[in-house]
Amino acid sequence: MNTPITARAHTNIALIKYWGKKNAELIIPTTSSLSLTLDQFYTDTTVVFDEQLTHDELSLNDTLITDNTLTKTTAFLDLVRQMAGIDTFARINSINHVPTAAGLASSASGFAALAAASSKAAGLDLDRQALSRLARRGSGSASRSIFGGFAEWVAGEDDFTSYAHPIQENVTMDIQMLTVVLDGSQKKIGSRQGMQHAIATSPFYNTWVAESAVDLVAMKQAIANNDFQTLGELAEHNALQMHSLNFTAKPAFTYFNGYTLSILNLVQDLRRQGIQAYATMDAGPNVKIISQSDATQVICAAIKNNFPNAGIEVAKPGPGISYL
Amino acid sequence: MNTPITARAHTNIALIKYWGKKNAELIIPTTSSLSLTLDQFYTDTTVVFDEQLTHDELSLNDTLITDNTLTKTTAFLDLVRQMAGIDTFARINSINHVPTAAGLASSASGFAALAAASSKAAGLDLDRQALSRLARRGSGSASRSIFGGFAEWVAGEDDFTSYAHPIQENVTMDIQMLTVVLDGSQKKIGSRQGMQHAIATSPFYNTWVAESAVDLVAMKQAIANNDFQTLGELAEHNALQMHSLNFTAKPAFTYFNGYTLSILNLVQDLRRQGIQAYATMDAGPNVKIISQSDATQVICAAIKNNFPNAGIEVAKPGPGISYL
Repeated sequence: MNTPITARAHTNIALIKYWGKKNAELIIPTTSSLSLTLDQFYTDTTVVFDEQLTHDELSLNDTLITDNTLTKTTAFLDLVRQMAGIDTFARINSINHVPTAAGLASSASGFAALAAASSKAAGLDLDRQALSRLARRGSGSASRSIFGGFAEWVAGEDDFTSYAHPIQENVTMDIQMLTVVLDGSQKKIGSRQGMQHAIATSPFYNTWVAESAVDLVAMKQAIANNDFQTLGELAEHNALQMHSLNFTAKPAFTYFNGYTLSILNLVQDLRRQGIQAYATMDAGPNVKIISQSDATQVICAAIKNNFPNAGIEVAKPGPGISYL
Repeated sequence: MNTPITARAHTNIALIKYWGKKNAELIIPTTSSLSLTLDQFYTDTTVVFDEQLTHDELSLNDTLITDNTLTKTTAFLDLVRQMAGIDTFARINSINHVPTAAGLASSASGFAALAAASSKAAGLDLDRQALSRLARRGSGSASRSIFGGFAEWVAGEDDFTSYAHPIQENVTMDIQMLTVVLDGSQKKIGSRQGMQHAIATSPFYNTWVAESAVDLVAMKQAIANNDFQTLGELAEHNALQMHSLNFTAKPAFTYFNGYTLSILNLVQDLRRQGIQAYATMDAGPNVKIISQSDATQVICAAIKNNFPNAGIEVAKPGPGISYL
């Protein structure tokens, strides 16, 4: 206690998506999911519990935060305080090395880093499974950012059985994600709201749950086999299934915009030319292109040729949480 | 015989889509569908059977055709010759008043006009149900273009039971379709090939068949109630369901491009502003906006504001086939 603890956690992008909760309070998902943690994007968070404080104090990228991000953070720290049996408030300093416009999930790295730093600062000594369960309470995808490389979040049935575990922390496959940034606007529909609406109204939702389980088994096999092509095909198929839930919700909504489809078509055109590139998208318009290192140049050239102003971020497999 | 017969048929746009056959040779669909015939776009076709001819002769928009459009036309005329008990070849002159780039189904008006003109020229006197069955053999959607206004193509089980019938030929509702032409390129994947691939590989296909039946009942009720909003919501939902089958096929394909999503988002934004506009899309990138006459100006202005070069075609409910 009273010693500042700093933890670093990296973002992850799901190859088998998480899209829907069976328990919204505990964040127990309807399906298991699988992601790749990325090296380029991470959050460093320092937490100190300080008896002088009369409430939690949060700064994000050196700016003091008082909006509902603070409310969410305090709710999360209440869980930590409960586990540690303390009632002290905390000072949290978080630096996000994630381009906020990129549609990369900063909540995944953010809550993973917060779980690691705050639990240790509160005097708890949690193993990674317990950290994953704790991070999950802040943001579902954060459960996976505890681990490096390929990680699976097992849906489970309750707070105790829903956590991520590593599938392959030191990735042997040549794999990278190119994030194509064409639209920096904020998403109109948050992912929490979006997934709840899809569960409630898409006629395809039950089929998605069943198919997702099949895709997950095949994805783990593809990782074990170092089979990049199968991994890419499964990831693109799974992402398009997830977004089809939104297209078929009542009323329909979508995170796709014109740029999304332009890049998706470009990726599918590249494949017709023999270049292995696959698309995945999350709760925002920007597309991530799953590819291998020898294809970077030709993919970037094709994008720049069509969209001279596109920003392209190249990320490789990244590590799990660490303390700095 | 030997008397030229000219028939006119109008295009139609499906509000409840046709996407898949249970019998490819006879064109028996997996689902019933429902469309609106449009006034603006039509095909005039003249047929004369002439014993001087040694093969069928086809001209389209005053150009002699010798490619596989002629092969399809001859195969269609073989059905007519069989019904009429003749073996004479025909001269066919077809003028398409459908902007070919607009993604409006010229095969629907084309085969409906051909069915009407060729059967009468061959000496047959078919009622509209028989004409609808015949037109279906050329192109499934042509079965609906025999009728004006709202028409339903009942899937049926075989050649005899699969035909369209009118739901409301003289449309009482204020309804129109704005076709937004932004992309004039040819579709990469024909609809026959696309729907077969979706049936064979989309995990959502069976659910689509079941949902489509539910949507159809609701759509007929909306027409009977003059309920434009429900009609629009159902049509957009049904179209997005159909396109989700393509997004979730293995491998995935799509008729959407960047323009498609830009216009879809624009339509959904207009609704948030209280303007009743709904999108529907077929086997091409251009979007049709289902709307009412008092909204034309604001919708067109919104499109032109974003896409100054967009072509916009406004179509109202149109009539069934006629002889000229």
